[in-house]
Parts: sequence; C-alpha cells; structure tokens
Amino acid sequence: MSDEPTRPAPPKKGEAAAGLPLVPRFTDQGYAAGQVRERREWIARQTGADLPLVAACAIPTEEMRGNIENPIGAVQMPLGVAGPLLVHGEHAQGMFYVPMATTEGALVRSYERGMVMLTRAGGVTVRVFADQNVVSPIFSFDSVAEAHRFAADLPRHFEALRAQAESTTRHGRLVRVDPRPSGRAVIVSFYFHTADAQGMNMIVKATERAAEWLVTSGLAPRFKVFSGLSSEKRASGFLLAGGKGKTVVAGARVPAAVLQAYMRVTPADIVSVWHDTMLGHLQANAIGFNAHYANGLTAIFIACGQDVANVANAAVGITDYELTPDGDLYASVTLPSLTVATVGGGTGLGTSRECLSLLGCAGSGHAPKFAEIVGAALLGGELSMAGAIGSGEFVNAHETYGRNRPAGEGGT
Amino acid sequence: MSDEPTRPAPPKKGEAAAGLPLVPRFTDQGYAAGQVRERREWIARQTGADLPLVAACAIPTEEMRGNIENPIGAVQMPLGVAGPLLVHGEHAQGMFYVPMATTEGALVRSYERGMVMLTRAGGVTVRVFADQNVVSPIFSFDSVAEAHRFAADLPRHFEALRAQAESTTRHGRLVRVDPRPSGRAVIVSFYFHTADAQGMNMIVKATERAAEWLVTSGLAPRFKVFSGLSSEKRASGFLLAGGKGKTVVAGARVPAAVLQAYMRVTPADIVSVWHDTMLGHLQANAIGFNAHYANGLTAIFIACGQDVANVANAAVGITDYELTPDGDLYASVTLPSLTVATVGGGTGLGTSRECLSLLGCAGSGHAPKFAEIVGAALLGGELSMAGAIGSGEFVNAHETYGRNRPAGEGGT
Amino acid sequence: MSDEPTRPAPPKKGEAAAGLPLVPRFTDQGYAAGQVRERREWIARQTGADLPLVAACAIPTEEMRGNIENPIGAVQMPLGVAGPLLVHGEHAQGMFYVPMATTEGALVRSYERGMVMLTRAGGVTVRVFADQNVVSPIFSFDSVAEAHRFAADLPRHFEALRAQAESTTRHGRLVRVDPRPSGRAVIVSFYFHTADAQGMNMIVKATERAAEWLVTSGLAPRFKVFSGLSSEKRASGFLLAGGKGKTVVAGARVPAAVLQAYMRVTPADIVSVWHDTMLGHLQANAIGFNAHYANGLTAIFIACGQDVANVANAAVGITDYELTPDGDLYASVTLPSLTVATVGGGTGLGTSRECLSLLGCAGSGHAPKFAEIVGAALLGGELSMAGAIGSGEFVNAHETYGRNRPAGEGGT
Amino acid sequence: MSDEPTRPAPPKKGEAAAGLPLVPRFTDQGYAAGQVRERREWIARQTGADLPLVAACAIPTEEMRGNIENPIGAVQMPLGVAGPLLVHGEHAQGMFYVPMATTEGALVRSYERGMVMLTRAGGVTVRVFADQNVVSPIFSFDSVAEAHRFAADLPRHFEALRAQAESTTRHGRLVRVDPRPSGRAVIVSFYFHTADAQGMNMIVKATERAAEWLVTSGLAPRFKVFSGLSSEKRASGFLLAGGKGKTVVAGARVPAAVLQAYMRVTPADIVSVWHDTMLGHLQANAIGFNAHYANGLTAIFIACGQDVANVANAAVGITDYELTPDGDLYASVTLPSLTVATVGGGTGLGTSRECLSLLGCAGSGHAPKFAEIVGAALLGGELSMAGAIGSGEFVNAHETYGRNRPAGEGGT
Repeated sequence: MSDEPTRPAPPKKGEAAAGLPLVPRFTDQGYAAGQVRERREWIARQTGADLPLVAACAIPTEEMRGNIENPIGAVQMPLGVAGPLLVHGEHAQGMFYVPMATTEGALVRSYERGMVMLTRAGGVTVRVFADQNVVSPIFSFDSVAEAHRFAADLPRHFEALRAQAESTTRHGRLVRVDPRPSGRAVIVSFYFHTADAQGMNMIVKATERAAEWLVTSGLAPRFKVFSGLSSEKRASGFLLAGGKGKTVVAGARVPAAVLQAYMRVTPADIVSVWHDTMLGHLQANAIGFNAHYANGLTAIFIACGQDVANVANAAVGITDYELTPDGDLYASVTLPSLTVATVGGGTGLGTSRECLSLLGCAGSGHAPKFAEIVGAALLGGELSMAGAIGSGEFVNAHETYGRNRPAGEGGT
Repeated sequence: MSDEPTRPAPPKKGEAAAGLPLVPRFTDQGYAAGQVRERREWIARQTGADLPLVAACAIPTEEMRGNIENPIGAVQMPLGVAGPLLVHGEHAQGMFYVPMATTEGALVRSYERGMVMLTRAGGVTVRVFADQNVVSPIFSFDSVAEAHRFAADLPRHFEALRAQAESTTRHGRLVRVDPRPSGRAVIVSFYFHTADAQGMNMIVKATERAAEWLVTSGLAPRFKVFSGLSSEKRASGFLLAGGKGKTVVAGARVPAAVLQAYMRVTPADIVSVWHDTMLGHLQANAIGFNAHYANGLTAIFIACGQDVANVANAAVGITDYELTPDGDLYASVTLPSLTVATVGGGTGLGTSRECLSLLGCAGSGHAPKFAEIVGAALLGGELSMAGAIGSGEFVNAHETYGRNRPAGEGGT
Repeated sequence: MSDEPTRPAPPKKGEAAAGLPLVPRFTDQGYAAGQVRERREWIARQTGADLPLVAACAIPTEEMRGNIENPIGAVQMPLGVAGPLLVHGEHAQGMFYVPMATTEGALVRSYERGMVMLTRAGGVTVRVFADQNVVSPIFSFDSVAEAHRFAADLPRHFEALRAQAESTTRHGRLVRVDPRPSGRAVIVSFYFHTADAQGMNMIVKATERAAEWLVTSGLAPRFKVFSGLSSEKRASGFLLAGGKGKTVVAGARVPAAVLQAYMRVTPADIVSVWHDTMLGHLQANAIGFNAHYANGLTAIFIACGQDVANVANAAVGITDYELTPDGDLYASVTLPSLTVATVGGGTGLGTSRECLSLLGCAGSGHAPKFAEIVGAALLGGELSMAGAIGSGEFVNAHETYGRNRPAGEGGT
Repeated sequence: MSDEPTRPAPPKKGEAAAGLPLVPRFTDQGYAAGQVRERREWIARQTGADLPLVAACAIPTEEMRGNIENPIGAVQMPLGVAGPLLVHGEHAQGMFYVPMATTEGALVRSYERGMVMLTRAGGVTVRVFADQNVVSPIFSFDSVAEAHRFAADLPRHFEALRAQAESTTRHGRLVRVDPRPSGRAVIVSFYFHTADAQGMNMIVKATERAAEWLVTSGLAPRFKVFSGLSSEKRASGFLLAGGKGKTVVAGARVPAAVLQAYMRVTPADIVSVWHDTMLGHLQANAIGFNAHYANGLTAIFIACGQDVANVANAAVGITDYELTPDGDLYASVTLPSLTVATVGGGTGLGTSRECLSLLGCAGSGHAPKFAEIVGAALLGGELSMAGAIGSGEFVNAHETYGRNRPAGEGGT
C-alpha cells in the first residue's frame, strides 16, 4: 500500500555519504576566495544555474567564517531608508533614519509615513523594561516525588549554578532560575543578562555547564539542553511575560490634526480599527495583537545583521490605541521579546555594520539604543497600517507603490 | 507628572512636513542610479556613516521600483548551499541543493547534515494538500439581527462575489467564502487560488472589490478590508486549519542505522526529544510544534526573494516522529501556511532569480515544486536539531561552527 | 533515589482486584433504593462520614440508571432565579426568569442586575447561527503519501460515510466531513446536526461506524475515535470557528441613561473596561475574551441538567462593546460552541426538568430556544461585571452579598 | 434596516425598574423559609412551572445567605462514589473513595476503573508545588514614560503594599508582586497565600486596598481591580506558569501486566494515544493537554461545594505518559491552577460538607490534602479514557453505562 521509494541499504561505518554528490569539502572548511568560487562553480555545474550576481559579493569571503558554511557568494537585497524618526529614549535621543531591506513594495513608504507623522507629533517616547535572555533545559526523573524534591531544592543551589554558568562567558550574567514541574520532569528557565549580544550561543553554553553540574552533583539524573519553553524563534504565550531579549515599550501622543494631515483619519477611526481587528485576532486565536511588526522587524533585521529568524519571537507584542481626554490619540507598542544585538552574529559583516552605523549603533554599548529605535520605528509602521485600513486607502497605496505599477507621486 | 516632550503645533494643510529633514524626494520617485547615489550621499551626510558596501549594489536600481522606496543601494548577506536533498514530490523530483542566506553560524551545516541523512535514507516524500490564500474583511452592522441576516444570506451571493473579485485579476480565482459572526460584525474569509504568486496584493484588491459590491448592493453598510483573522504575517491557531498559502506535508522513514551513522542517536532518542520538547511547547503555550522552522525558512526566503516577513505565519506547523514496527524512525513536517512564490514580489530580482534557478524553480509554474523542496528541506533541519539535542552535541556543534571559533573539521 | 512505594505483584487474570476494598457490586448494578442505601452505609462505615443529607434524595434512585454509577444519594445546591430577562430571539420571545444553581454569593444578584437593565433597555436580540456537533477521529498511515491520498479522496466517499453514520442514530445527521493532514496521519472532523440533544454519545457512535467502514473498505489501515481536535470539554482555538454545539450571538443597545441608572457608569466607561481587560487577556494568552461566561453557564447548566463539564468549551467566546453614534452602548456576546440540550443526559431528572420547564424549555424542540435564553442571560452577566469594574464597586458588591457578611439592602 | 425593538424611554431616577415584573423583594433579602417558599410560588405562577422537587430542599434556607440570592429551593444531582484510590501525598495518605456528582453516564465507572487500577499498581504519588492565588489590577497612566517609572519603582514599595493588603484579611498573605508593562498601562499581579480558602473575594479586597494606596500615595493616577491577566475562571497560557491556586503533580508507575488486566492495552498503546491525541490538541490550538480533566473536576467540585466555574481554569494542565526502561508505563498529571478549598464558599453547606468529610477533608487545614486527592483522582480518569481510546472500547463502555441502555454487568 506504500509508494515510498525502496530503502537503500544502511551505510557502513566510515563511508556514511559514500556515493552521494556532496557539496565539495575543503581544507579549513573552504573560506578562501578561490574555494568559494570553486564551490560556486561546482554547484552551477550540478544545477545548470548561472550565478553571476551571487558571485558579485562584496563581503571578503574569509570574514564569512563563523557566519555560514558552504559559502558560494552573497545575496543582495534592496535597501531603503525611512525617516526622520524623532526618538525620546533613555539611550536613543534625536532624529534617526532607519535602514530597511525588503522587496515588498510600499513597505518602506508605509513605515516612513508613520515615522514622519510621529516626528511631527513630537516624537516617540521609548523605554526598555527588562533585558535578559533565557534557555530552558528539561531535567528528567524517575518519579514525581524526585522531580518535586529537585524543583523545591533548586533555589538553594543558585550561587553554585551562577558560578558554573558564568565560568563559560565573559559577558553573560545569570540573574535568575525558575523551575516549572511537568509530571516527572522539571523545566528550569535560566535567565541571563547578555549585554550587547543576542547571546543565545553564549547562554546555551553557560546553561549546559550549569546543568551538567546538577547532574555530576547527583541532583538530577539527566537533562536535555532545550525544552522549547524559552520559545527561541517561535511565537508563544511565554514570550509575553518577558525574558527573551528586551522588553521595549514605545508610545506617542498624536494630535488629531496631525493624524488627519498624514493619515486622513480621526483618532476615533484608529480606535475603531483597533476594535475591529481585535475581533479578527481573537477569532484567529493569535498571540498578542499587532498589525505587522513582522514587516518592520524583518526589514530592519536583514539590514542590520540581526538573526532574522528571531522575528518569529520578536514579532509577538501588543499595539494599543486610546483616545485622550482632549481628543487626541495615544498610540503604543509593547515588545516583550525583542532580540537585538550590536555585537556578534552578523552585526559586524559589511553592509550590516554600515546600516548599524547609520543609526549610531555599531558595536559595544549600543544594543539598548538600537532596541529603542526599533520600538519607535514599529510604532510608525503600526500607525501607518491602521491609518490605511481606517481610511480605506490600503489597496490604493499598494497599487501606487507595488511591483510593476505605474509610478505615481508619493508623499508623506 | 509627565515627561513627554512638549507637543509642537499641528501642521497647517499643505505644509505637512514643513521643517522636517525629509529624505530627498525625486521625480519619478528616484530610482535612477544617480538619484539612488544622491540619496545615499545625503543620508551619509545626515548620519555621518560611510556606506561603501551598500553602494556596491549589483541590482540595477531601476529594477528596484515596485520592490522598495527610498532606495540607497543594497545589503549583502552570505549565501551557502545545503544538500544534496533527494525529494519525491508530485512536482519536485530528484536531487536538490538548497540556497540559504544567513549569518548564523552552524545553520547551513545543520540543515545539510539532515538533508544528506534523508537522502541516504532514501529521500523525502512530499505532498501539497491545499493551495489557497485568504483575506478576511470585517463587515459592521448596527445590530446582531442585521449581522445575522447578512451572514446567513451570504452563500446566495457567491457567484456575484466571484465575478466581482475575479474582475480585478488575471490569476486569482475565488474558491470559497466563509462568514464568521462576531457580535454585530461578520468577518468573511475570502479564499483564493493564486497560482504561482504569493498573491496578497492581488487578493486584497479582489476582496476589496467584492466587499465594495456588498456595500453598494445594500447588503452591508460598511467594511474594513482587514480584520486580522487571516493571520498574514503572524502566528495564530487559524493558520493550522490551512488556507494561507500551501499546506505541505513532508515525511521520510529513516532507518535506525542511518540515524545512528549521521546523528549518533537511536530512533527512541529522537522520540524522547519529541516528548520532552513537547512538554516545553505546551508549557509555553506555543502554536504548533517544531524545533526551528523559522531558521530554515528565513534563510531560504532571503535567498529566494520571498516575502521574508511571511516566516511569521509560515513557521507555524507540526513536526512529528514515530517509531516504526521494525525499529526505524518515521519523521514528518506539516506546514499549513507555507506562503511561497516563484513569480512576483522579489522573486525576479538579481540574486533571487539565480537562487530560484539553482532549484529549477524560477518563474511561472514552479511554486508547488518550490513548496515541496522547502518542506523537504525543513524536515532535514528538524532532524538535525533533534539529533543534536538527543545526542547532547548541540553546544559542541555551535562551538565548532559558530562565529570566531577555531575552525574544526566539519563533516556530515 | 526513588521514594515511590514498592510495586505490588501484578494481578493474576480473573482476580484483578483481589484484596482491594471495592465499592460493593450489586445485581443489575444496584439502582434499587435499598441497594443505594446499602452502598451509602458501606461507604459511611469505610470513611467514618455521616451522610444524612446525601440520603435526603428526592430523585427516585432507579431513574439514576444511565446517569451515574455507584449511586449513594444526591447532592443539593441552592437554586436562585434571576430576571426578568426580555428576549427577542427566533425561538425565545418574551420575559424569562433564569434558574441558577450556585454557592457563589453575589453571582445571582449580579446576573439579575444585568438582565433587568437589558430588559429596561428594550431586551436582547439573539440569533443561532450554526447548530452542529463534531467528532474528530484520527486515521494513521504508514507514510505521508498514503495519508495524502486518503485525505484527497475522502470527499468522494461522503455519501457512503453518511449512510454508515446515520445507520446508528435516529436523530443525528452527518452534514460535513473535513480532513486535516498531520504528517502521516489524517484527522477527519465529522460534523453532525443533533437536534435537541447535546449528542456526543450519539455522534461518537455514528462516527465510529463510519470510521470502521473506511477501514473495512481498505481506505485506511486503522484509527482512533478521538484525536482531541474537536475540543470536547476543553478550551481551544478550534472552537472559535464554530462546530461544537450552537453558535449563538446576543446583542442589545443600552441607552446611556439606562446604563447610568443601573450601573452608575457611562458607555465610555464600559468601553474602557473592554480595552483594559483586553490587555490582560492578551497578556494572559487567553482564548477569546469575556468577563465570566463560566459563572453564568455553570449556574444554569447545574440547574438545568446540562453536562456541566461542557462549560470548559462553552465558556469560550467573545464579548464586545461599542459606542453608538448617538452615545449609547451596543453590547454583545458571541458563543461559538454552546453545547446545550433539552432532551437526553440529565435534562429529564427531577429538578433539572423543573428548571427547564421554568423557561418553557423542557423536552423536544426546545434546544434552540434554550440556547437563545442562555446567550441573553450571559450578556446580562457580562454587563453587570463590566459595570462593577468600571464603577469600582466590585469589591463592595461582594462585601454586601458574599458569604457571612452583614446583610445590606440589595437592589437592581 | 434594523429589526431591533423600539427603545423604551430611559428610566427616571428612583424608578429604575418601574413596571417590570421584578422577582419579589423581601426584608433582609428573604432567606426565611416562608420567604423562599413565597418567592418560589411567585415564580411558579409567573412561568406556569411546577416545582415540587425544587421545594424538597434539605438545606436550611437561612444557611444559604452569602451563597446565593433570590433563593427558591435547591437542585439535586445524583451522587456516586469512585474508589478505592490509594494516595501517597505529603498530606493525603491512604485509601480514598471520591464523591462525584454527575448526570453523565459512565463517568463514575470510568474514573473508578482508573482509580482501582492505580491502587492495584501501588498507588499515586502526589505533590503540591506552589500554593498561591493571584489578582492582577491594571494601572493606567498618561504616557509610556510614567508607566515605566511606576513599574520600575514598584519593587521598592513591596512592604507598604503588603501592609495595606494584609490589613484587610486574617488569612491572606501577600507573597509577591509582578508588574508587566503594557503600553502606557501596567498590569500588576498580586500573589497571595490563601490558606484553606479559594480566597478570591479575600484577595480581591486586599488587592483593592493596596491599589488604592498606590493611588492615594500619588504613585498611580487610577486603576481597575481586574485586568483579566490572572485568568480567574478562564483558560489561558498564563495559568501554566502557576499562581492561580495550587500547582499539583500526581504520578504513578503502572506495571504492564496491571494495565493489561484493567485496560486491555499495553504501555505502548497508551503512549500511542498520547501521540495521536497530541496531534489533535496541537491542531486545535488547545491550551495544555489532557483527555478530560473537566469531567472529573466538575463532578468532584459539585459534590464538594467548590466554586464549580473554577473548572474553566483548573482544567488547564498536562497529562503525560512514558515507557519505563523495564517496559511499564509512567503516567502523570500536572495541574498548575487547581483552585480548591475546604473552608468558605459552598464548602460548609449540607451535602458539600458531607462529601468533604467522606474524604476527611472538611474544614480548616485540609486544602492541600484535598488538592492531592483531586490530582490523584484525575490521573485515574485520564488513564481510563486513554485505555478506552487505545483499546477501541470507548463507544462500548458508553453503550453499556449510558442513558437508557440495557443494563450489562459492569466491572473493574
């Protein structure tokens, strides 16, 4: 009854991939320019594809080590800027122009429209509330009784866990452990401060060390370093409680006249959009509520060398609109798990560093500033989308700016 | 009690952005090479940033029209390849090498390890179940009674709605409308077949036309084109029922010996990882269950010119592992909302087209094939991650391949 | 390392419970009055408890057959009435007094307050949108390819499935089957119309018959009758799409003056409660949005012989408040999975039948009417709670009516 | 376009309900036996219903004060017992017979089957991990900056908050406050230990006092006592983190032979049920995972005078099954929000007190013991349901025990 293909014989030890046309292997993993070219030419022959633009790579190939394997060149994505965006943070203060890499027409214009309006309204106030990242290994026991004893006793071992964890890292600092019993297992969330790095590799290593200590000390028989609870790169309710990255809140009062001038809607129209789309979010059983954080986050993350897959968790958050007593609009975004970095990962590579420097955020000491700018930028995108829905102009805007449309005159 | 900045006076009509240092405006929106350079130089002056690598842009600037606004050049991201991946789909058949753009060290190696193992195990079977995209406008009424009558009568108007919707598009086809009452509002999901395009702009326009017809026909007093129910670019429970993009299921039987050779774990170890990480997902109140679809999707979407923000919805899905009666592993991924395209959006731009052509998926007629390859590739990534967790080698692998680490000898 | 008790030797066949002090077994399962008394006395001896009030059971013990096993008497719970409630349904029309069984002080008064206000405001409009119940068995296959073929072909077998399913029931009618692929399994939702019964036993039996036919016809190798998808007795996102029981929407316009007179709040205050508690629901990752459906449903379900555990699913729904253009409040509740019955289950037992008759809903033909009254009653409870939160009087009300408090003068 | 009824004129002050047929008002709210009879007769006249069994009320009517308003008598529900259940808790130790009030045929038998099997397997180990209840008021500010300052400073005020909160209660103890920023609002969760009471009224009052102090101290301009975050009487992801009521974990090792004898399934069959129904729960976007906690909780809560509507939150939890190395089954339930009480609410009323005394749990000092018994009982119900699904006997069991079926011979 099956139409699965016939299984090949299992491989013998030492010849695991015998016979398969593997991507070429090189000494030192092949990051020299010639090796990258050789690999690219090999793949072109295998597939019949021409790859001249992939070859037009401005990143020195040796610099790719640690960021990618089997490199064959680089992809290019259009980069635009949106702004000015006036930010009143504790770290970011002043006017910013936000680099956004995307191929989705109208996106940059939409964000820009919101940013300019916010700037005209007096700017965006932003605060970073919590700043930590988390890994949640799972410890397994033979019975509920043993798991309970472990969970109940864990607080007594905090200092030892901290010493173990911090022995693996110069920058990470263990700030809290939180056990959650689950049958005869216990999931323990290890919360770290990670300075300017996104820090997942750092804290996974630190957590593994601490977990191994629990095993060698006889407190737990075994563990797996990931349980999934900490929701790295996925949406979940857990994220709303904070803990993964930075909790960022950005808000602004938008005078009714400014809103009308830029969006052709009233504050009540925006509140009505909030209401109506809330019904849709509730019906969808969505996590959090927002119009399109994913759009802005993705464009900024690609531009600035962030781990773009973190958008899956960073896009969880809550946009809010309220009328003020004097008839204006108060708008805010709450981002409980904004995972951004200004050092490590892809932040130092070619165009990423340039984009971060465009914001004055390249290098150490700038992650909170970068987080505040991102929060403020997302508020612009939310307002612009809400305005487009409220005024009925969404389709029009995409007709004007979308792919292959006759060019019209844009404007803010 | 407030430390909000003093509000500026609202703008007068016609001078909305007076005084703000707007990004320069150009005739025809400024896609000529000189205009892009001029804009880049202006932004460099404003921010003090040097942007030589952003300037090293291989995409002809005029081709960016419709994909981005305010262009200043391009970003570059390293591109690697993972494979070979043997796929047994209805559209994709044979060996593939998957292009992945990322800056996250170890990611390409991890996916490659899974792909090679799957290929050695006999390949991946993939099927596309549903293939549709959806927009869900919300219609508002004055009372529950009127909303009920509208929802109850809607099926009678399907042919008229179809005619209206399809009058706006050559490729989109309205296949179903589904009303969901919500108080005195009714959210109506319009389901379309969109051929090889992701199609959101297409179907939003078509839906708007149909919705306007309902208003002009006196069947509804007003609507907003988005309710949020259709979960474009966000995670939600709604997505699991299918409807947004393609529903793709990929599965493979992995002999115990193959699993041991590549991952150093047994099928029971993988099932144990499934169990333990399921507890974490449940505790997190996550949507669906998977190890890291977001990683693979993001890398492939960036490489292949997809709308990367769609990862937020496409990453919702379910990975499954079961022991077979003869002691092997059956592994599968189920992706209910895979939004991929081979035409439109960024698919035709420079490196995107080259990456799609590397898979034999550039242009019309290839979206189902591309979807099958993506599904198979994700299965590889899931198995590799599960193997790393099960064998306790996750941290080690990231030490070997991660940023700035001494180079070790990789291998599959 | 374990402190689990030592395991006893496994039982030998035929003496499974040897040595355990089982609850006494009787001929014909022991529903005669003397047998119930004997069982009660036995349990009193075992536990040392006196059970005089449990013995004061007005339900003829033989009538308990089919509703409970091991009967020892009955529990009693206080019964109050709330009303009048003016309902404008398609089935329920006129004034109603709603029986509510509870021990939670202030609950009846709170619901009554809302009902009287709604009545004074002109009554509640209610509509039943969908009316169906669902069971979702899971079919397992050896590979993704086989599962796909099954799911793709299923629509062709609908008539056969319907014939099989309906052969087991006089009242159930199969209206739709909906396959959802999940790896190498397929979950198929069987949707039935169940007339005036809650109907779970009926439709599980019918579904089992249809599923067995699929196996004996060679279309599927095996199945389990429950997958959990249909969300019987649990909260889930699936329920919001309708399908489990009746989808009921109730709404009313409440003039500002009426709201002020009964609740001492303005329509804007109620909208503010909606906004603020929405933030809490979002932060909690709750399913749907409402203040306390569970309170009203539980009290009515206990009074009227419903399956009270169905509150877990029936309490999923959405309460909505909006300002009208003329400054009044429009309030509504949407209940997508209201599982109520007027025949079968406990509906015919003693006080249950009396309570249903108090609503004119005892026996066949009255389930939609009952559903409409329940929907309208819940709207009263929602408004009363929102009013109490908005006016800051929640604690006061519970001080006045709660357990062991000095009696104050209540009032509507 | 509306078919809403014409609105009546708004009421004049002081004659709010003029003309409406209100339920009769009595001096002292009417708890005297004669007043209850008079009210019952009035309602009987209004509705035409006969209420002889409602009148057969064994609860002294004056004792109903504080538990219900507008009393007209009592409802009766059949009561059965399930057991014996061997419990190894820290508070509950020994054999128990669990009182269950229900009208759902087969439910008591099903739970009993699981309990007897668990007892035969050596009993159930149970632990209470956390024991607290929570209220989450929302504080509103004029801007994000003010909200941030409040949230950041809150920890400094803990002692003052504790003094304020505890001034209102003899039993409640404030153990923790946890602020969560949400735009320009801050939701603060106040966690209390509530001794043997469910304690919601107690802690809402205490929280209100503390919140008022924050306002009078000038730290916050205004608040609402409920935000919904604490998830009283609803399902949510928040509950999984513990905090609402008791976190209870119950587990048992079930030898394969015992499982076979009682359930006619193997441990692998049960694990397969877990797997297959997990797919359904994932597809449904359910919260947590369990077969039917709601059934057991509801039956025990009704019997024992608990706040039955709390089933909505208490039924959130996770059932787990694993194979042990020696081929047995390890089964567990994890209940993060079990809200039970042995004092207050309905626990002291007539049959409730008798049912609690049947477990040795009536009155002060017994809430943890009661919680442990409930946890163990639910494990029995889960196993019985899993066994019925795994063996394919679910429908048969309901045919045998369900309403109006020919009586067969039951047995454990």
